[in-house]
Amino acid sequence: MLLNKTLEDLKNSLKQLPGVGDKTAQRYALHLLNSDKGHVLSLADSIKQAVEKHDNCSSCNILSDTEPCPICLDNSRDGKLLCVVENTYDVYLLEQTGDYSGYYFVLGHLLSPMDGYGIDEINLSQLAKVVEERDVEEIILALNPSTEGETTITLIAEELGKNNNRKITRLSTGLPFGSNIEYTSSVTLSNAIQRRYSIT
Amino acid sequence: MLLNKTLEDLKNSLKQLPGVGDKTAQRYALHLLNSDKGHVLSLADSIKQAVEKHDNCSSCNILSDTEPCPICLDNSRDGKLLCVVENTYDVYLLEQTGDYSGYYFVLGHLLSPMDGYGIDEINLSQLAKVVEERDVEEIILALNPSTEGETTITLIAEELGKNNNRKITRLSTGLPFGSNIEYTSSVTLSNAIQRRYSIT
Repeated sequence: MLLNKTLEDLKNSLKQLPGVGDKTAQRYALHLLNSDKGHVLSLADSIKQAVEKHDNCSSCNILSDTEPCPICLDNSRDGKLLCVVENTYDVYLLEQTGDYSGYYFVLGHLLSPMDGYGIDEINLSQLAKVVEERDVEEIILALNPSTEGETTITLIAEELGKNNNRKITRLSTGLPFGSNIEYTSSVTLSNAIQRRYSIT
Repeated sequence: MLLNKTLEDLKNSLKQLPGVGDKTAQRYALHLLNSDKGHVLSLADSIKQAVEKHDNCSSCNILSDTEPCPICLDNSRDGKLLCVVENTYDVYLLEQTGDYSGYYFVLGHLLSPMDGYGIDEINLSQLAKVVEERDVEEIILALNPSTEGETTITLIAEELGKNNNRKITRLSTGLPFGSNIEYTSSVTLSNAIQRRYSIT
């Protein structure tokens, strides 16, 4: 018995969840089919609510159900720091570390002309405006160390680096915690040796 | 930044997916928040559709979007065999093996008085009726080898075993493929030694 059309649709929709392939999606779909109808309908409703209630904060672009977002509203944060991230997901991850207390700016996309994200598609002019208005002292570029990330970092550093009073930093690159040098890519190892630091 | 109420609700709803704990649910929720709105809304819709379009087949209780279900409609199947399963999910899993070509009967629940599933909550009388009507020769009890499963197997065997012309079988118990005897529970090993079979 193959999945019927309704279940096939559900399976394909579930595949948009991160790390969920064909097999897991099918397991999820069949599990939902066998679950309590009320709970499953409330999942559908929660998804709809989450999408419909969230909008980009007009100042920092974080997806939030309030305007402005809770972070922009929080006066206890360090106004000298602005952390530039790709999307709202990254904001949550950085917040979870507990190591950052400044404000954020969500770029929306990394520079990737091949995928249709050119300079006009990332919120660069808005970023420049926020940096000026807030009189930021350090801009932390917390972008992926990938081809797209590196290009975006270079672009932002060029655009915003003209003011010498302003520091532009990026996240450290090197060995991830718990990794094994034997299985580390040569680019990562190359970063790690170049950026080695003194411990004495 | 903690998750806001909308995202917290979404996270909790996502935890009903099998094997999804707090951390994965949060990852899914944040990923959905950052995804294309149209795709995410279509996921919500697919879930709703799947729940609303499916109902129990009046003959075998399989959750199906047609009445009767495709399996009951399929005349090429072996009418002498009836496989009793706990839920529709199990039907899909058994169908995927390609090793069974008879009909099915979905019990709905295993016997578990502690959880409120007594004899009246499982479709036992309906099963007896189907067995009579179809004049089944073998009833395969494909139920979990758990406490609840064993109790249910005993109950069904007693209820339907009075007719001696009818064979009642259950799935084989023993070592799962790819397992390691060293890490196998003593109940499983005990089953495996008791049910050993000749290979010469």
